[in-house]
Amino acid sequence: MASEIRKIGVFTSGGDSPGMNAAIRSVVRTCAYLKIECVGIYRGYQGMIEGDFKTLDARSVNNIINKGGTILKSARCDDFRTKEGRKKAYDQLTKEGIDAFVVIGGNGSFTGALLFTEEYDFPVIGIPGTIDNDILGSSYTLGFDTAINTVVDAIDKIRDTASSHNRLFFVEVMGRDVGHIALNAGVGAGAEEILIPEQNLGLERLLDSLKRSKASGKSSSIVIVAEGDKTGKNVFELKEYVEEHLPIYDVRVSVLGHMQRGGNPTCFDRVLASRMGVKAVESILEGKSNLMVGIRDTKLVLTPLAEAIKAHTEIDEELIRVSDIMTT
Amino acid sequence: MASEIRKIGVFTSGGDSPGMNAAIRSVVRTCAYLKIECVGIYRGYQGMIEGDFKTLDARSVNNIINKGGTILKSARCDDFRTKEGRKKAYDQLTKEGIDAFVVIGGNGSFTGALLFTEEYDFPVIGIPGTIDNDILGSSYTLGFDTAINTVVDAIDKIRDTASSHNRLFFVEVMGRDVGHIALNAGVGAGAEEILIPEQNLGLERLLDSLKRSKASGKSSSIVIVAEGDKTGKNVFELKEYVEEHLPIYDVRVSVLGHMQRGGNPTCFDRVLASRMGVKAVESILEGKSNLMVGIRDTKLVLTPLAEAIKAHTEIDEELIRVSDIMTT
Amino acid sequence: MASEIRKIGVFTSGGDSPGMNAAIRSVVRTCAYLKIECVGIYRGYQGMIEGDFKTLDARSVNNIINKGGTILKSARCDDFRTKEGRKKAYDQLTKEGIDAFVVIGGNGSFTGALLFTEEYDFPVIGIPGTIDNDILGSSYTLGFDTAINTVVDAIDKIRDTASSHNRLFFVEVMGRDVGHIALNAGVGAGAEEILIPEQNLGLERLLDSLKRSKASGKSSSIVIVAEGDKTGKNVFELKEYVEEHLPIYDVRVSVLGHMQRGGNPTCFDRVLASRMGVKAVESILEGKSNLMVGIRDTKLVLTPLAEAIKAHTEIDEELIRVSDIMTT
Amino acid sequence: MASEIRKIGVFTSGGDSPGMNAAIRSVVRTCAYLKIECVGIYRGYQGMIEGDFKTLDARSVNNIINKGGTILKSARCDDFRTKEGRKKAYDQLTKEGIDAFVVIGGNGSFTGALLFTEEYDFPVIGIPGTIDNDILGSSYTLGFDTAINTVVDAIDKIRDTASSHNRLFFVEVMGRDVGHIALNAGVGAGAEEILIPEQNLGLERLLDSLKRSKASGKSSSIVIVAEGDKTGKNVFELKEYVEEHLPIYDVRVSVLGHMQRGGNPTCFDRVLASRMGVKAVESILEGKSNLMVGIRDTKLVLTPLAEAIKAHTEIDEELIRVSDIMTT
Repeated sequence: MASEIRKIGVFTSGGDSPGMNAAIRSVVRTCAYLKIECVGIYRGYQGMIEGDFKTLDARSVNNIINKGGTILKSARCDDFRTKEGRKKAYDQLTKEGIDAFVVIGGNGSFTGALLFTEEYDFPVIGIPGTIDNDILGSSYTLGFDTAINTVVDAIDKIRDTASSHNRLFFVEVMGRDVGHIALNAGVGAGAEEILIPEQNLGLERLLDSLKRSKASGKSSSIVIVAEGDKTGKNVFELKEYVEEHLPIYDVRVSVLGHMQRGGNPTCFDRVLASRMGVKAVESILEGKSNLMVGIRDTKLVLTPLAEAIKAHTEIDEELIRVSDIMTT
Repeated sequence: MASEIRKIGVFTSGGDSPGMNAAIRSVVRTCAYLKIECVGIYRGYQGMIEGDFKTLDARSVNNIINKGGTILKSARCDDFRTKEGRKKAYDQLTKEGIDAFVVIGGNGSFTGALLFTEEYDFPVIGIPGTIDNDILGSSYTLGFDTAINTVVDAIDKIRDTASSHNRLFFVEVMGRDVGHIALNAGVGAGAEEILIPEQNLGLERLLDSLKRSKASGKSSSIVIVAEGDKTGKNVFELKEYVEEHLPIYDVRVSVLGHMQRGGNPTCFDRVLASRMGVKAVESILEGKSNLMVGIRDTKLVLTPLAEAIKAHTEIDEELIRVSDIMTT
Repeated sequence: MASEIRKIGVFTSGGDSPGMNAAIRSVVRTCAYLKIECVGIYRGYQGMIEGDFKTLDARSVNNIINKGGTILKSARCDDFRTKEGRKKAYDQLTKEGIDAFVVIGGNGSFTGALLFTEEYDFPVIGIPGTIDNDILGSSYTLGFDTAINTVVDAIDKIRDTASSHNRLFFVEVMGRDVGHIALNAGVGAGAEEILIPEQNLGLERLLDSLKRSKASGKSSSIVIVAEGDKTGKNVFELKEYVEEHLPIYDVRVSVLGHMQRGGNPTCFDRVLASRMGVKAVESILEGKSNLMVGIRDTKLVLTPLAEAIKAHTEIDEELIRVSDIMTT
Repeated sequence: MASEIRKIGVFTSGGDSPGMNAAIRSVVRTCAYLKIECVGIYRGYQGMIEGDFKTLDARSVNNIINKGGTILKSARCDDFRTKEGRKKAYDQLTKEGIDAFVVIGGNGSFTGALLFTEEYDFPVIGIPGTIDNDILGSSYTLGFDTAINTVVDAIDKIRDTASSHNRLFFVEVMGRDVGHIALNAGVGAGAEEILIPEQNLGLERLLDSLKRSKASGKSSSIVIVAEGDKTGKNVFELKEYVEEHLPIYDVRVSVLGHMQRGGNPTCFDRVLASRMGVKAVESILEGKSNLMVGIRDTKLVLTPLAEAIKAHTEIDEELIRVSDIMTT
């Protein structure tokens, strides 16, 4: 029952993403505002199992809204996948007097939370924190907006040097299973072609597109490649392939890597995080559980965690079409 | 009839906003893709009246997707408010063989377009380009996302110096009639208090809030003030007022000004602009007119221009509440 | 004697500047490296008088190299200008066992240090921390490089909107007594005219320059005005003056204000701060005092504090000439 | 003789660097100011051989001071290494009436210029444009300051995620022969260890340093590796090595790549470029040749090209020491 909630735990889990700190801050301040105690759980489920807890008051989250990463740290935790691990976690939470928790993370983190709450009937609310934007139940996940801006800034720089030398660049961006970063940043950066996990356009089409681009008089070409691209070739192999089949290009490769996970969050991610944190705490106090806070248009919505983890969000067909038209 | 459209004009009008160039590029490239001629009209309605036209092909919009401002320039135009002015504009368009136009701008620009199309039955589609985010029919206008990031970056810098000296800052941001920039950037920047045109919280509340903030041990306070704030005092007067009534603070003022209109557009604004440009051209070719392209959640929608100009979008009450809670 | 130094104090004083935290970190870590104790003195001379001290070890300055502002805070202190104030400060330092201190600040801070060390023969080394770059004995002060980049970024944004509307902007930047920020940022931003405290070019020349600029077909004009400009008019008065005498322009004003003091320090400022901190501590241990660490070309140098505070560095005549030529 | 100079060519050559456009603009505007004709030569020596020329007036370089890359393009040119190639270039220059040229580039570009001017007694002045900062005769080359800021920004982002997961990152930065970028950006970013071409510290030291870092309680470690590092291992091999010999770390790799060459130039690079362009043109008009414009402290200096290409600038031993102390 909601009236029994006196202490709420909060933690981040899985890959970190910009906006996580803003979400932590929001959970902490909402608790303070509502006179609920708030406990930070360090290093995700691992810290939960180990009892790595620290009480957080409103002032302890000063000056973190604009910081990337997560002050509560994150970690993978194999133990929590076992019944024994979850038992330990439950005992630690009970010992500390924590009545409910807010988990900020992605699919894996929510799966863990779901198992836990099914076993122990423990109130849990999730906040989608991942740069991949692949979670059903929210149009945007925390960190996605920052990540696409980081990618676009990097490609703007690469474009400078590509144009100066009439070069072709293959740029690898994050996205093993989903192409949201690749597609959005690719359109935003004016990429010539965008290779994503959801589609296999084939290498023929790539060569055609590059030929057309060259013929049209463009001074450079950028091809964005998501990690999980379906051509079967990574960026280095793509370089070789194009050099062999289309020797008109001077080809270079850039792998953007982990910088995509960091950086000061954008205003969008900060605001979204602030809103989601409030909603998460209020939902717990309303007696809700097993739900994820999401955003649809400008309104916050709640989706069952079981629903959220079912599948990745689908790629936007309209945006693929826009991408094609823009490379005219 | 749609089949008759062979040449489409495009222009920007009113205050410029980041993303306008990306929208121009999108309109031009979509026309090229669909084998329609595209004509750039310079300096908005003024250039239309003067016949300041230039044909734009796909290559003419290279390397502008990431540039602030508008390559087609913008201008105010009193002449277009008169029947004679609009007659001249119509004659120029006819002479040039322009069959329809896409107008990128705000309320004022749409009002002009509406008058024009009612008089001449001329196909017109609008794209909402303004940093104010105040247009009914779209959850986001082009440039808003960039503007709130510009404001948040500036306040992050001000926060550095405010914290070092335990100071209170009043920061004025754009927004004569609406507080969307102030409210979003204020939450994003962790502002202590946010004064907007939609609400008059009263000066008492401001003093209370500042007193509480000081007592809570915060090392600095930032108050965001929209231009059209309803306290009846501008930032300089607010400074004096607080210095007189709450002499515990060392108060400073910052007016962010026109830098809020410029800057490289964010990825969000670039993608939105690219999508809207495609939709605008396609809508014209489908025989539609007098509509504005907007976005609702992740989908593009069309709204009658007559509807779009009726009122400002309302401020989000939930976000005001979040703002209050965050300053705990 | 150098062999007696066991504990070094460090503080920031006067207006804060980006790079101060990096300098604090460097002083602290150099002390740790050399097995000297390091004590942070909060709020400059005020905290010294009040005994607001805290021991800082190597880990206490983690993750501050890239933060603007100063973790040790800064404050003005009238008490320290009196003999009694300095006596109290000396007593506090003695009580804490502090054998020497490093002061990070500008002219005013160094003047205080000089008075103090003359009265008490206390080892003192200064590090020039001010965005104004006005200190004899160093080609660059900490924060200057960051500040000119902040100004140039802001003007790049203003340029976007200025160009879109063919406008003239007067942009006020910091610099009451010296024009280094105005001149460097003005050249970097491609300003039409730059008004600085060191020269009175006269309003006639300004009008001539603006007329020429308009005639040459430029789409916008930016005039940078240092706070201490000698025309006798501030930016608002300049606007009125030009509107009256040169009505061909649509004129706007922007006052950049305190954001110029904040922001993440540039790499240049971080490296300079790191080097200066090492040099300051090592100089103390070598038995030196009453000196300021400066940089000449790529080498660190020491200058007597008495020398450093004598006068402002002069403006670079060659750069004024470059500025003139660039506006061709 | 200087009095005979009526037309000056300008081009960029070799790898591009931020600030090249600002230097082109400066050369063009200085020519316009002095009533000399200025001709842009596209694609470096290749375009010179092909006669790819275009007259540039003051307005043709509007709005490029803040753009990365080079509007004149750059290219490698094997032909110019042959006597025949240089003969063709000379013929094209003569045909176009070009009396002298300014070459913006690095060592390779200067070597070509030197050969050319020895054969044809043609007035030539060089401007050092390369991100590597490896040219004798100038304390700073154009683009270096921008590049180190780009690297530091990227590492700040990587630090966010490294800290959140307690990870070790190997970050590869540009620098095949010199470690200036690695060393400066490494100190600026607070790197744990910096591996450069000029020193082989050995892998033992690396392991020791990482062990010490872990023991000291740091939450993350960043090791910067210049491309030409002398350990004999690239970043991927270093990762494997550490994982094998020091299994306490979760190791990741990031290769920053070509984004280091692009981006809007910093204020420092813009001002330096503006000054160097003026000096280059004026030097030609004073009858000088075979010289490179450089900067020493705040003053421009001239160095014989033959001197400039002799060797790389040496790494700063003091900065290496600072780097060691900072990782305490």
